[in-house]
Amino acid sequence: MTNLLNIWASVQEIRRRAPVVHSITNYVVMNNTANALLALGASPVMAHAEEEMAEMVALSAALVINIGTLSAAWIRSMFAAAEHACKRGIPIVLDPVGAGATTYRTSTARDLIDTARPCIIRGNASEIMALCSDGIRSKGVDSANAASEALSAAQSLHQAFGSTVSISGETDYIVGEAGLIQVRNGHPMMTRVTGLGCTASALCGAFAAVEPDPMRAAAQAAIVMGIAGEMAAEGARGPGTLQVLILDALYCLTQQDLESRIRLGS
Amino acid sequence: MTNLLNIWASVQEIRRRAPVVHSITNYVVMNNTANALLALGASPVMAHAEEEMAEMVALSAALVINIGTLSAAWIRSMFAAAEHACKRGIPIVLDPVGAGATTYRTSTARDLIDTARPCIIRGNASEIMALCSDGIRSKGVDSANAASEALSAAQSLHQAFGSTVSISGETDYIVGEAGLIQVRNGHPMMTRVTGLGCTASALCGAFAAVEPDPMRAAAQAAIVMGIAGEMAAEGARGPGTLQVLILDALYCLTQQDLESRIRLGS
Amino acid sequence: MTNLLNIWASVQEIRRRAPVVHSITNYVVMNNTANALLALGASPVMAHAEEEMAEMVALSAALVINIGTLSAAWIRSMFAAAEHACKRGIPIVLDPVGAGATTYRTSTARDLIDTARPCIIRGNASEIMALCSDGIRSKGVDSANAASEALSAAQSLHQAFGSTVSISGETDYIVGEAGLIQVRNGHPMMTRVTGLGCTASALCGAFAAVEPDPMRAAAQAAIVMGIAGEMAAEGARGPGTLQVLILDALYCLTQQDLESRIRLGS
Repeated sequence: MTNLLNIWASVQEIRRRAPVVHSITNYVVMNNTANALLALGASPVMAHAEEEMAEMVALSAALVINIGTLSAAWIRSMFAAAEHACKRGIPIVLDPVGAGATTYRTSTARDLIDTARPCIIRGNASEIMALCSDGIRSKGVDSANAASEALSAAQSLHQAFGSTVSISGETDYIVGEAGLIQVRNGHPMMTRVTGLGCTASALCGAFAAVEPDPMRAAAQAAIVMGIAGEMAAEGARGPGTLQVLILDALYCLTQQDLESRIRLGS
Repeated sequence: MTNLLNIWASVQEIRRRAPVVHSITNYVVMNNTANALLALGASPVMAHAEEEMAEMVALSAALVINIGTLSAAWIRSMFAAAEHACKRGIPIVLDPVGAGATTYRTSTARDLIDTARPCIIRGNASEIMALCSDGIRSKGVDSANAASEALSAAQSLHQAFGSTVSISGETDYIVGEAGLIQVRNGHPMMTRVTGLGCTASALCGAFAAVEPDPMRAAAQAAIVMGIAGEMAAEGARGPGTLQVLILDALYCLTQQDLESRIRLGS
Repeated sequence: MTNLLNIWASVQEIRRRAPVVHSITNYVVMNNTANALLALGASPVMAHAEEEMAEMVALSAALVINIGTLSAAWIRSMFAAAEHACKRGIPIVLDPVGAGATTYRTSTARDLIDTARPCIIRGNASEIMALCSDGIRSKGVDSANAASEALSAAQSLHQAFGSTVSISGETDYIVGEAGLIQVRNGHPMMTRVTGLGCTASALCGAFAAVEPDPMRAAAQAAIVMGIAGEMAAEGARGPGTLQVLILDALYCLTQQDLESRIRLGS
């Protein structure tokens, strides 16, 4: 499985090509996700004006849409960017932050999925469940459900829209064409840093830019994110240092780090 | 007084309940205040679209409004959120960043106080003074006045609107129903990190979510913020490491840290 | 040259006067640039509402305009702020982030230069070249060109608009009235932290607030930024710690650090 996933080749390819990853994301995490992409070796771009969507998407190797702090103007740009990316065959990653918390978020996320047919949808369990069922209410933007509870929702989304669905949690579940991949990397303290889920989505964009198989790209991102978190946690005294050391870990990551730490399966 | 303030019980309650704190705050500090809330144990939500204000407020245990980077659309959402919070009895914290620097900020802050009747108003001395008197001009967003100079303004605000007023400075003054609490925790280097005042306001929201007495909640937030700053300063080489270590300190904070470090009174 | 540049006097003056530097900048870097200004000793203000532009500019000793995340409303405020700053003789610094990536950015940057006549324009090579020639396409917001390639574009800009032009790269080139200054401070890892170019522009604002000669101010900012990066790199394990330690270095910077580390010339 490790070889099948071929993570190290993707990491090297990101470092070699520095793919431009265009993010339309939320205000809270912009700095962190840009830094995570740079630390890994990608070239982040953040732009949200409808006036420059066509040109910015045309420069990009992947598009990441994150609905964490929505407004009407940003939603218009998200749809415009998605349309341009679809036309050009640029992979789209969607992070439905807070789906289930408000109707505005749930319906925007659903419309984006319907229009953009993202190659990867990455969210926590409550968000993924909310995309499929009106009865789900997340607790703000944090999940009120275990990742495994969202498996059937993920399968429904995959069947309906073709998207690979990555459910983050203590174990990450990646649901797609080839079935299910379970990633058991990560550290509990990661839940105390804002936007590490958003960072995982940004990394999905970087991996999707170099790896055409979306399940592999999503799994590579989940593994690299989890391993960077574990490496950081070894030196961290709390979530402040953890956030900083995750960037260092993404930058320093070696093949040996990946091979010795990867934990897949149930 | 320490027992009366009952800080440790509130910290434990925040860690146990992880109250959702909804912030409509400025772009500069969003990441830091979200991280401070998470490090302490609360569950931050940032949302500013009018379309989702009612639902987001309904999920929340406290609402923090911070006027640090205003625009017309955000002001509309602040008023909408305040109205929903008032109806539901959800405590509101207001941070009048830069009141006194421009008429736009001063008048927005005053209108919000008049409408929202915040349970806590937290600002620096110049800001608090500007809320009461047209002659006060802050130096941008940094205070040009010592905290003690704002005491009578704080008392006027409390009398007119019922709000507890927390004036940050070398000594923090909390003015409310029970009179005056003086908090002498903190470290001078904290003035060289952007948005630690905003972080103190965010913590007011977390404490107000679990402690119904606004004076106590404001004092608890001021003490925890000051002590976290002191703990961080012991390991910091400058404001960069200080900011990071404050998050670690909020996460690691023990009853003993609180009891051994708390400094109240004149 | 070191004495001519007189950096230490400017650093001391910034620390003594804490000049208010008003930034209208992008969402990604706001926190970092505010922190860099505070660490150095300046007093940052971020405000973007047209309603408060006149008053905020009037409070300020320098105005920094950064087009990293544009939208129509922000562009209007940038022009309004520039107009007020011009009337009051307040120095303007422009950072044309992503000029060349999209027409929207290129034309906004050109119009701002034409209107505002910035005392300093600071960008990477691709951005500076794009301001002069329609054939240049940057790779997103990262430069696809070496700094030296942009020298003739910088000279054209200087001749046409009177601006000092600072081209960031492995060697920074500052082109202005007195010819050319080359600054060779810095560290390669700095390219892996988002927004350090934006931070360099913010520092240009702080130095321009205390040093009337724009070439000197731009060189002082480039040297201080580069030296802070070198000092930080000595303790950093990756771009996460680097970003944090740059703030510490700006705060701790001594005359001896400057004198022992400064590297000018070819």
